[in-house]
Amino acid sequence: MNDIVLLQAAFSAEDITGNRHAIAEAYGKAAAAGAEIVAAPLQAVCGFKPGRRLQSPAFVKAYCEAAEALIAATTQTVLVFEVPLVMQDGGYTPLFVAARNGKAERAAGRLTFQYGDGRKALVCAANEAHGYAEAETLKPDLLILADCHALVEDKEAERDKRLQRAAAAVETTVYVNQAGCLDYHILSGGSTRFDAYGKQRATCPLFTACLTAPQAGFTPDYTDRTALIHEALVCGIRDYGQRSGISSAIVGLSGGIDSTVVLPLAVEAFGPDNVFGLMMPSRFSTDHSVNDAVQLAKNTGVSYEIIAIEPLYTTFLQQLAPVFKDTPFGLAEENLQARIRGNLLMAASNKKGGIVLNTSNKSESACGYGTLYGDLCGGLSVIGDLYKSQVYALARHFNREREIVPLNCIEKAPSAELRPNQKDSDSLPDYDLIERILRGHLERHLTATELTAQGLPEADVTKVLRLLRNSAYKRLQTPPVLRLTDTVLSEYRPF
Amino acid sequence: MNDIVLLQAAFSAEDITGNRHAIAEAYGKAAAAGAEIVAAPLQAVCGFKPGRRLQSPAFVKAYCEAAEALIAATTQTVLVFEVPLVMQDGGYTPLFVAARNGKAERAAGRLTFQYGDGRKALVCAANEAHGYAEAETLKPDLLILADCHALVEDKEAERDKRLQRAAAAVETTVYVNQAGCLDYHILSGGSTRFDAYGKQRATCPLFTACLTAPQAGFTPDYTDRTALIHEALVCGIRDYGQRSGISSAIVGLSGGIDSTVVLPLAVEAFGPDNVFGLMMPSRFSTDHSVNDAVQLAKNTGVSYEIIAIEPLYTTFLQQLAPVFKDTPFGLAEENLQARIRGNLLMAASNKKGGIVLNTSNKSESACGYGTLYGDLCGGLSVIGDLYKSQVYALARHFNREREIVPLNCIEKAPSAELRPNQKDSDSLPDYDLIERILRGHLERHLTATELTAQGLPEADVTKVLRLLRNSAYKRLQTPPVLRLTDTVLSEYRPF
Repeated sequence: MNDIVLLQAAFSAEDITGNRHAIAEAYGKAAAAGAEIVAAPLQAVCGFKPGRRLQSPAFVKAYCEAAEALIAATTQTVLVFEVPLVMQDGGYTPLFVAARNGKAERAAGRLTFQYGDGRKALVCAANEAHGYAEAETLKPDLLILADCHALVEDKEAERDKRLQRAAAAVETTVYVNQAGCLDYHILSGGSTRFDAYGKQRATCPLFTACLTAPQAGFTPDYTDRTALIHEALVCGIRDYGQRSGISSAIVGLSGGIDSTVVLPLAVEAFGPDNVFGLMMPSRFSTDHSVNDAVQLAKNTGVSYEIIAIEPLYTTFLQQLAPVFKDTPFGLAEENLQARIRGNLLMAASNKKGGIVLNTSNKSESACGYGTLYGDLCGGLSVIGDLYKSQVYALARHFNREREIVPLNCIEKAPSAELRPNQKDSDSLPDYDLIERILRGHLERHLTATELTAQGLPEADVTKVLRLLRNSAYKRLQTPPVLRLTDTVLSEYRPF
Repeated sequence: MNDIVLLQAAFSAEDITGNRHAIAEAYGKAAAAGAEIVAAPLQAVCGFKPGRRLQSPAFVKAYCEAAEALIAATTQTVLVFEVPLVMQDGGYTPLFVAARNGKAERAAGRLTFQYGDGRKALVCAANEAHGYAEAETLKPDLLILADCHALVEDKEAERDKRLQRAAAAVETTVYVNQAGCLDYHILSGGSTRFDAYGKQRATCPLFTACLTAPQAGFTPDYTDRTALIHEALVCGIRDYGQRSGISSAIVGLSGGIDSTVVLPLAVEAFGPDNVFGLMMPSRFSTDHSVNDAVQLAKNTGVSYEIIAIEPLYTTFLQQLAPVFKDTPFGLAEENLQARIRGNLLMAASNKKGGIVLNTSNKSESACGYGTLYGDLCGGLSVIGDLYKSQVYALARHFNREREIVPLNCIEKAPSAELRPNQKDSDSLPDYDLIERILRGHLERHLTATELTAQGLPEADVTKVLRLLRNSAYKRLQTPPVLRLTDTVLSEYRPF
């Protein structure tokens, strides 16, 4: 069962040397244990994801040298990996390598090689239709499908069908994927060995490194998206922290649904002793906001402080008098409160060393409903790729066994509490409507006219698309977002 | 002389309808005046720069419809333009169109068409070597080289040589470029008509729209880079403002060289009545800092306020006491001051409506020498692509006729003034050394070993490259930078 070892791990483009060592070490162990083949996922040597780095000759040189070093150290166990072959026009093609006894065979796009006593293997990228077609005619004994697939809404079931179809043509098929959080993508793992009936015979865990042969008995469930997202986000926070040398977090707790969901995610990633909650009520905060936040802190076991922003707000208004003069209360005063909170969170971070986790969601971020350097501050946006409805789903998911998220946080109407009796619904359409408009526009590329033709209210469609367009500048300066979809807002550009 | 009209302007990917109207209007005027050919620059219809938008079917549909509308409205004057032809693999090729009397000829890469009484024209992209080669064999009567070239250090002279070589093979050559600031690129304009001896017969102005035939008598000087950068940055601020509906600016004035250079640029872009200076001294500010800043405000004629941050700093320390406890003065206290200033600037911006111009330079930004949400705040980074030496050159350039930048700002040692007697040189190598290390690494892709082999001190090389790598996270959240090079730091990714 250990004849084929899969190197499921996160390989970073920021650490080619680390990638080489990780591959060499796992290969050495597998070879010593008598493995016939050791297969690495896509972009294991150069790291995920190379992007613009491929234009740097020093980067290309570094991963090519790493590849040569790996090849030179091979024994009779075959090591299979991929490196990008950079073309004249700046694009690239995967170059597959199969190495043994210090020598390598190489081919761009897909590679066929002999192993054992005259058996044939074919290796290609998991999303490479030509490779699949070739498998059907070539009928190799072993098909290796290499991938670096990040969790993307509703793409996993489709991919599994494709893999199973390919596997049905071949005696043994292995799918090898990266796992962990790199460059804000959450690589899903789940490397799998299929038998000749296209059945999953053994699967590695999701999101977690697994540098051995996959073990039988685990079949991932890609249909419970909330549970998947939960696992993915915890992986995202933990791995991002690990790579940045950070092992603790600070979360501003408003008692609203967003921070209420981010806190338990942080607790799972770093442990309750390494998460600090900061409540920063203002003259406009309601009592239940602080109470709900305190209850959450108690439910999750984190330490917390309550710092009133009133003295700071008053002093700012005094000092700003020559600029504000006798103008009425407005946006400047609202943003001021949010930015005082941002400053307190960052000060706590600088003093204690934890990362400030941003708590904005995709629905409000799309509408520009947030203050730059205020509630939009932080080192990492945890739920910035989740619509409001998904944030609620996650809150209910946390309460599946016992109440972690106070029910009041789930039940009350969302409010920024920056002026008296403020509600999100004062300035925004209903969140369900926002989500339908955004999904239609971002996922299905529908225009305002097309969205309206589908029955969505014209005034709301116009408003949401206008807000989306006009708030693009804010998203250029907000923390990087853990990606769960192909429509992450940091990549949205208005037209 | 008005037989060929060039549409030198800024065409934005955010405004396809606006592009269509601008082209149609200029075409109409030129046709009425008897022009034979009206030529638009690259990406005039879809707008600069399409980037990821080309993956949106709605975007592609929109510019194709605009192109069809433009074609349908043509009379006997030929309208020449380009639209991207999106390929299956996601890449694109320029598709050239020559339209007249409601009908069009189209070709990818380069297009040959007949005009007038049997003359031949060839149109291609200005950086298209194949097109040039074809011009030499085809010998057209007219060669149209379409471009959307942004100012890039030291590339303009090279381009002009290339254009002149091509022009020498053809009776008449026109080079048509976009002009203005789009997507933080500063499109350089300078559209030119060459005669058969490769001489520039007439050139449009730099950086400024010019929707008529180029006029004789102007020859741009690409060798005085400081003067060019000066013009480019003023264009950048003004155009960015115009497209965002902003006509005023707020600049935090520390008395240091960076803000001292940004202020007069803002004044040239918006006028002195529309620029507001904010001095925010702390307990660590020296007297001369405020005095120098006040002198600068007086020299440029802007209004200003002085707001002491001491009461705010003290109140923050009081409120943060439960978090800071009895820890010594450190990074948290330094950043706190910078973020109080950020909050004051943004409050002034929210109240008065002007854009906060960020004043960080490329040398300090590369080293992460700045506070997120503090001095790194703002809507637009003006000098973020200029090394410190270039900032000083610009300061001296401002003083070429009379003293605008107080000499003390140029002569004193740079300091962040966040703790007693602080100097930049306490934490950073000499700025000239930083620039040599960064230029070698960013422009010539040299590694630490290669830089050291060239005689740069190993300890400083290691330090600067480490700082560059470790501060990448900050640059993900800083304002967009007016681009002057191919090595803008917002695109730098560590490896």
